[in-house]
Amino acid sequence: MTEPTDFDGTFPDAARRAVYEAIARRRDVRTFRPDPVPDDVLARILIAASQAPSVGYSQPWSFLVLRDEELRGRIARHVEEERLAGADVFEGERRDAYLDLKLEGILDAPLNLLVTCDRERFGTKVLGRNTILEADVFSVVCAVQNLMLAARAEGVGWVTLLREEVLRELVALPETVVPIAYLCVGYPERFRERPKLETTGWLPRLDLKTLVHEERFGAPLSGPMRDALDRADTGRRG
Amino acid sequence: MTEPTDFDGTFPDAARRAVYEAIARRRDVRTFRPDPVPDDVLARILIAASQAPSVGYSQPWSFLVLRDEELRGRIARHVEEERLAGADVFEGERRDAYLDLKLEGILDAPLNLLVTCDRERFGTKVLGRNTILEADVFSVVCAVQNLMLAARAEGVGWVTLLREEVLRELVALPETVVPIAYLCVGYPERFRERPKLETTGWLPRLDLKTLVHEERFGAPLSGPMRDALDRADTGRRG
Repeated sequence: MTEPTDFDGTFPDAARRAVYEAIARRRDVRTFRPDPVPDDVLARILIAASQAPSVGYSQPWSFLVLRDEELRGRIARHVEEERLAGADVFEGERRDAYLDLKLEGILDAPLNLLVTCDRERFGTKVLGRNTILEADVFSVVCAVQNLMLAARAEGVGWVTLLREEVLRELVALPETVVPIAYLCVGYPERFRERPKLETTGWLPRLDLKTLVHEERFGAPLSGPMRDALDRADTGRRG
Repeated sequence: MTEPTDFDGTFPDAARRAVYEAIARRRDVRTFRPDPVPDDVLARILIAASQAPSVGYSQPWSFLVLRDEELRGRIARHVEEERLAGADVFEGERRDAYLDLKLEGILDAPLNLLVTCDRERFGTKVLGRNTILEADVFSVVCAVQNLMLAARAEGVGWVTLLREEVLRELVALPETVVPIAYLCVGYPERFRERPKLETTGWLPRLDLKTLVHEERFGAPLSGPMRDALDRADTGRRG
């Protein structure tokens, strides 16, 4: 497309569009083709993950690559137990809808990734962490989002139905290391146009204009900002 | 560059490169030009933020746009107090180096953004949150990372030297809403080649090969994965 120097400042239009497209088209993937993920692809998305911002440059992340089917089978069984237990908070049709949802692709995906946060990587005196103790965990979540965007062409699903203490024992994490994200990585059957929980009517898409405030939390949006959001949204869909 | 359909599956090479470049070249920005950020630009990056994954599609984020200089001045004074207080954990040269760092651009930037998480947006029964209670906060952090990548051409700096209780009072947040990220948004003087905390020697860049493990946490990397990471890293720099 361009010379490397084209990325020094403002990106060219086509490049900027690509970034927005990756963000808009990222989907949580639960259904995978069996094709393996080449090591070179995995390496690229891990490097992208490690380029996230981190509080005080503490880079608290680690990445555990899980391919072993026996271990993944044990994790999948735990997730299934939690999925069934999770149904108890819903009733009637909502409960049925919940139980119909496929919430993980642990064994379908060719590999799983556990992204962790070492809460004492450079000791506890990390620049910028004295006010917000969770800033290290936030750094790791930024890495996860980088990873998901980088893997947009590959496909990643985030599994949250896991209990920390169970996972910690299954993969033998050191005491200072906490699990942040359990991801299923592989090539998807397809990317959905809209999130599945939206199209199945689980929850509605919120209108961003109700979530943006100016100067005072909860204040209604000013006319210019409201118009700008409408214009940008139309542009994105058009 | 292309027809919209080009983004349905695997991205074209140029588009994929653009995504990797945005991720690699994102920097925390503390020094801004005074140029305003047009509402249309702000709208685009807020939409990108709102396209993050969220646990159970709960979309728990809100975005508070702060331009008022008096309010920002009060926030800046609080941050400066915390910056000075934060020096106490360091000694000698390290303390001097810390005090030399510019850690925010609250008043330099034309606008600030506070990204928050409503911990009860759809009540407390959110799909996937019964096991990991912080999954809603993680969702908002993913939105912040989207926002930072979308704003790569504009420039964003994340300020962590803020106490929740002080910020909560200054901007009058409702009880269920917690502040996650305070961001300075504007056009940077320039984007650094490497993070400032790396080039000033505050902390070294960690070798990703020591942070990736296979099957067992802490296990040394296999030859193929080690080679793949080396190849990907060389490719990125070349």
